[in-house]
Amino acid sequence: MSSEKSGILAERPPDHDVFATRRGYNFAMSRQPCDLIVEARWVVPMAPGARLLERAGVAITGTDIAAVATVAALDADYAPARRIVLDSHVLMPGLVNAHGHAAMALLRGVSEDAPLETWLNEHIWPLEARHVSESFVHDGTRLAMAEMIRSGTTCFSDMYFFPETVAAAAREAGLRCQVAFPVIDFANVWSENADAALHRGLRLHDAYRDDARVKVAFGPHAPYSVTREHLEKILMYSEELDANVHIHLHETAAEVAAARTNHGASWIELFERIGLLSPRLQAVHATQLTAAEIDLLARNGVHVVHCPHSNLKLASGICPVGELLAAGVNVALGSDGAASNNSLDLFQEARLASLLAKVTAGDAARLPEIRALEMATLGGARALGLDAVTGSLEAGKSADLVAVDLSAPRFQPVYDPLAQLVHTAAGSAVSHVWVAGRALLVDGALTTIDEQALGERTEYWRARIAPDCNRMARGT
Amino acid sequence: MSSEKSGILAERPPDHDVFATRRGYNFAMSRQPCDLIVEARWVVPMAPGARLLERAGVAITGTDIAAVATVAALDADYAPARRIVLDSHVLMPGLVNAHGHAAMALLRGVSEDAPLETWLNEHIWPLEARHVSESFVHDGTRLAMAEMIRSGTTCFSDMYFFPETVAAAAREAGLRCQVAFPVIDFANVWSENADAALHRGLRLHDAYRDDARVKVAFGPHAPYSVTREHLEKILMYSEELDANVHIHLHETAAEVAAARTNHGASWIELFERIGLLSPRLQAVHATQLTAAEIDLLARNGVHVVHCPHSNLKLASGICPVGELLAAGVNVALGSDGAASNNSLDLFQEARLASLLAKVTAGDAARLPEIRALEMATLGGARALGLDAVTGSLEAGKSADLVAVDLSAPRFQPVYDPLAQLVHTAAGSAVSHVWVAGRALLVDGALTTIDEQALGERTEYWRARIAPDCNRMARGT
Repeated sequence: MSSEKSGILAERPPDHDVFATRRGYNFAMSRQPCDLIVEARWVVPMAPGARLLERAGVAITGTDIAAVATVAALDADYAPARRIVLDSHVLMPGLVNAHGHAAMALLRGVSEDAPLETWLNEHIWPLEARHVSESFVHDGTRLAMAEMIRSGTTCFSDMYFFPETVAAAAREAGLRCQVAFPVIDFANVWSENADAALHRGLRLHDAYRDDARVKVAFGPHAPYSVTREHLEKILMYSEELDANVHIHLHETAAEVAAARTNHGASWIELFERIGLLSPRLQAVHATQLTAAEIDLLARNGVHVVHCPHSNLKLASGICPVGELLAAGVNVALGSDGAASNNSLDLFQEARLASLLAKVTAGDAARLPEIRALEMATLGGARALGLDAVTGSLEAGKSADLVAVDLSAPRFQPVYDPLAQLVHTAAGSAVSHVWVAGRALLVDGALTTIDEQALGERTEYWRARIAPDCNRMARGT
Repeated sequence: MSSEKSGILAERPPDHDVFATRRGYNFAMSRQPCDLIVEARWVVPMAPGARLLERAGVAITGTDIAAVATVAALDADYAPARRIVLDSHVLMPGLVNAHGHAAMALLRGVSEDAPLETWLNEHIWPLEARHVSESFVHDGTRLAMAEMIRSGTTCFSDMYFFPETVAAAAREAGLRCQVAFPVIDFANVWSENADAALHRGLRLHDAYRDDARVKVAFGPHAPYSVTREHLEKILMYSEELDANVHIHLHETAAEVAAARTNHGASWIELFERIGLLSPRLQAVHATQLTAAEIDLLARNGVHVVHCPHSNLKLASGICPVGELLAAGVNVALGSDGAASNNSLDLFQEARLASLLAKVTAGDAARLPEIRALEMATLGGARALGLDAVTGSLEAGKSADLVAVDLSAPRFQPVYDPLAQLVHTAAGSAVSHVWVAGRALLVDGALTTIDEQALGERTEYWRARIAPDCNRMARGT
């Protein structure tokens, strides 16, 4: 019953001949051809108003979804070239990981039990300065993508050095992504200053202008590490190019307190004055929010990206998701980098988001399963401006979908598959993943990433970085 | 690199002949025979003061651990009849799940997003009254044990109807357990009243008096569902028999407020007056504690069982683990039943316990990994009075150990295996489990539970219970 061993339980031959014989020639003529029908025990479309379907499937033509319906209805309308039957699985839209630093997968576990300031200033930044290169980013991004595909993520947002490398790696692996190129005032491995970063980033944006799967956004690191002048430049360019702005915002109480001391206002209040609050803005973390700030975010259509594991692990705080949703703010989920999580499994973020919303409100009805799953799919797509393309299973959207095998004892029995998806570690039971109709995971095996080669590169980096970790642990 | 597919990477032949030849006859004579050596990339003994070992292993003779040491040291001292080499694995003590209701695995997901009172009174109790039988408990306990073994639990505490059936099922499956027989004032499927429950429970205690793996304890449901008269009887018997008392205590604010209204004191204060606070008492949940109550628990050696997922999901509150540990209270971890979690994976409880301790204290250094793992192993063993037998890898203790395969991308690279065990869903990568030297999971396959037959029984119960769930969801 393990997810690795089951998978495709039966692969039926294309059956339009059978139907043509059984139902007559005219009927067969009316059925449209499609490339693939994926059938499953359950389908969770996540489209607004759509209900859970049983014994249903998705018809795919080219890169897109042609239809989502019961097996009976699909059989009446479509003659698939191929059919995959997943008898113990849920089919659902691929998850959207709206915040991360993929290549930091190579720094998973280097700094444990440390608060944000120590973690960043004394551990992560020095290690990055010593080790991060184009090659590090290539290998680290592939490691992260292997993990994300295996746990059902089909679209991720990334903010890291060498964004050109991230974009190329994502294209090659077949994942959908938003690459937010990093803008930081001080010199780093990728850019000598913020102007240089903007220059390189704008070139990257231009290179991917017409790409179907890679979207380039502005990634100012945080308001405390980018000058107001550069934030204003970013605002101007983002309006001109209709590009998103992705930023760490109100992550810790100390950060907000410093803004109040130095500027007499919080960062969100200052952003309003600058004009940065808009539906193009993705505010990541937002653990520290007043009622007035929630109102500002809501009125300006800002998206919030909630990263619960990272916020708890670094003791930053808890994003008030219940209040944000009540105010009408769209909330997405992010894993953050593996160095502060230490997992990139977005199902786990959905679970923790749901649990935290309940306990902080003292109300078990808060953030019910369907809303937690919506944050992990459609909410993420909305935040990245991709909800016309992905985030739900709907005819006309891209065929970005995943199958989760619920046959293992830990998922049984299934009364309500949504409960299993949110509360029982579904990420480790993902068996199949498609992005734009292309299979990236088939019966538990990656198709676009060679895990053997990946393992060798990971070991190469581990051996280089481990001595520095030991030195840090000794405090020398 | 998947955990299901790797596993035993190489099985070396017994090598004492090689050594006898190479090092001479006298040396070979000095090596003691043992049944099995399990070698792994890392060994985490969890014994007080013991450090992480690399390229190390455990020598097993009969039901017990003969030695824990590096491979070189074991080779010098032992001539094993068999050897298992796990090159990408961590070997650690089996986890101790100190609170649960195993058979409720059959009710996984029946009542979602409901607060404790509704969940219990309107959903769970009516369903139990209708469906729970000896056969339900047998099948449900086996389903739970399959999940617990697969996620690395070797010892569990159970509190449920038909405890005789639980004890027999655990013996058969080879798990170690504490069976806390339920005492509740009102009539239920197992006992017509508290006296009848005590009578049957004492008989059960007698039957397992000399059992090496099953220990019987008193399981008064909660202070609000058992009279003072019966709590006093339980206290008397527990002292006479030196048996543990396992009880839900201070789970919700409403429960404590009611005690104050009706009795002028909290349950913990009342327990002190009765004399129930002692090292035999296992206080489960304890989300509502004053500083004075923490002091009472500490001074009387009471053990607390923290069930973070269940407490968050039912919006009960957060157990103040940091304060309890600082006061010297032993804290164990429990999954609670699958109907309020919905998982029985104790690694997930360790992760959430660590994260909650950090964020509630605003200090990322709180409950570091080693302490979270200690709660999941030795802390649990201490709570159940089994720390002389299990909970750490030490010579003379029972051979209760598990191997976790860290080869999958989501665990890579490994700088600090403890970080992987706590923060990266290690429960789904458990490959091998031994209890008292007997293998219960070998390379991802259960040896004592037939999963095919289990699946059929689970489907039988699902089909019977599902119509009632639908009725509840419709509110009819």
